[in-house]
Amino acid sequence: MKQGDLLYLGKAKSVYLTDKTDELLVVFRDDITAFDGQKKNVLAGKGGYNAKVTAYFYPLLEAAGIPTHFLAEVTPNSHLVRRLSMIPLEVIVRNRAAGSLVRNYGFTEGQPLSPPLIMMDLKDDSRHDPMVTDELILAMHLATAEELAEIKRLALAINAVLRENLTAKGLDLIDMKFEFGRDTTGMIRLGDEISMDSLRLWDHGAIGASLDKDVYRKELGDVMETYAAVAQRICGK
Amino acid sequence: MKQGDLLYLGKAKSVYLTDKTDELLVVFRDDITAFDGQKKNVLAGKGGYNAKVTAYFYPLLEAAGIPTHFLAEVTPNSHLVRRLSMIPLEVIVRNRAAGSLVRNYGFTEGQPLSPPLIMMDLKDDSRHDPMVTDELILAMHLATAEELAEIKRLALAINAVLRENLTAKGLDLIDMKFEFGRDTTGMIRLGDEISMDSLRLWDHGAIGASLDKDVYRKELGDVMETYAAVAQRICGK
Repeated sequence: MKQGDLLYLGKAKSVYLTDKTDELLVVFRDDITAFDGQKKNVLAGKGGYNAKVTAYFYPLLEAAGIPTHFLAEVTPNSHLVRRLSMIPLEVIVRNRAAGSLVRNYGFTEGQPLSPPLIMMDLKDDSRHDPMVTDELILAMHLATAEELAEIKRLALAINAVLRENLTAKGLDLIDMKFEFGRDTTGMIRLGDEISMDSLRLWDHGAIGASLDKDVYRKELGDVMETYAAVAQRICGK
Repeated sequence: MKQGDLLYLGKAKSVYLTDKTDELLVVFRDDITAFDGQKKNVLAGKGGYNAKVTAYFYPLLEAAGIPTHFLAEVTPNSHLVRRLSMIPLEVIVRNRAAGSLVRNYGFTEGQPLSPPLIMMDLKDDSRHDPMVTDELILAMHLATAEELAEIKRLALAINAVLRENLTAKGLDLIDMKFEFGRDTTGMIRLGDEISMDSLRLWDHGAIGASLDKDVYRKELGDVMETYAAVAQRICGK
């Protein structure tokens, strides 16, 4: 595998072309950002922890029948992935209320949500990632009705796999953010990452005992100590 | 019918109890507000124009099989209505893009939307009426799935009746806002009003030729001259 030109520069990952047209190299950088990129830092080792957790979960999801973009670990902070045509949605699944759900809609912090609550934001920093409804997604031609149903089905299935896995490790999965794309056959696959940047995790039974990027957002402690400890709890090494 | 105690003081309407427990008196006041109530004025005659247009449309909708709260005109600016348990949603139907759809999602002003696009906001001024999805409505127990489906069905049916009626009068119905409630039997009925405050109307074929509250919001001309002329075009007298 030969690293080619930079295809996409995200806030925390860089995506490169490879010598195969349908495969890309994702590099997890040490950049960490919050609040629409207004807060930014570089924390040595962060990219590696997120890459490690992502490389742990994606094969687990594939084994559970969920199509992902993941192909292989290349280095401790880079993965070879299938090239997807990304759907510009941030798909959020919530098991308990926290964050914007509490701020904007009056839910109580930690309030259980049953069934898990799916929400979707348009991935568009220039518009501050506004929330979208099913009707808006269809009107904006972001996905077909069939794709939208498949995205929701996959999001709930992924949540179920992650929740069971994390609960066994004493981690309460509060909410999470996914991004999906279409592969060359049109199949919807999970792209992006599953990491401490995209999961909201609380230590079991303790409301707001953050073990994720909220430690950075809210300055609750040493971010890299937290990421290192959580990566070890999740991956077992 | 005897006017009783004030039950609810809205930004532009006051609702009073009557001597019948299941009937209320709605008084259309001359107050006009915009931008979450930050802009406020009193415009003599405004309540009467909105009451007149509402009293024109509601019987038309009832005749088309759409249940409403309307019972009778009492004075030129007050209506007798069925008492509903209101569902705190602002139900918006859009035939063409304008307003927040252009500002927040990048649609083009006047862009046709087919099918008409339904959106819903939580009616909660203290939270600035945030948009809600079907999943949020269910999680917040604002309506059941069956009620939500009925609200959408009615909203589209009302749009179809209004659009046909207004098109014949040279008025392009761009979008509109409805509020629904449950009557004592649990049936979903249209409440609130249909007026220049809740419809977005453009003179036929002219993008942004506002004949509604946008004249007030954007200071496009004499608001009461516009309301008087539109009420006459709609009601034919």
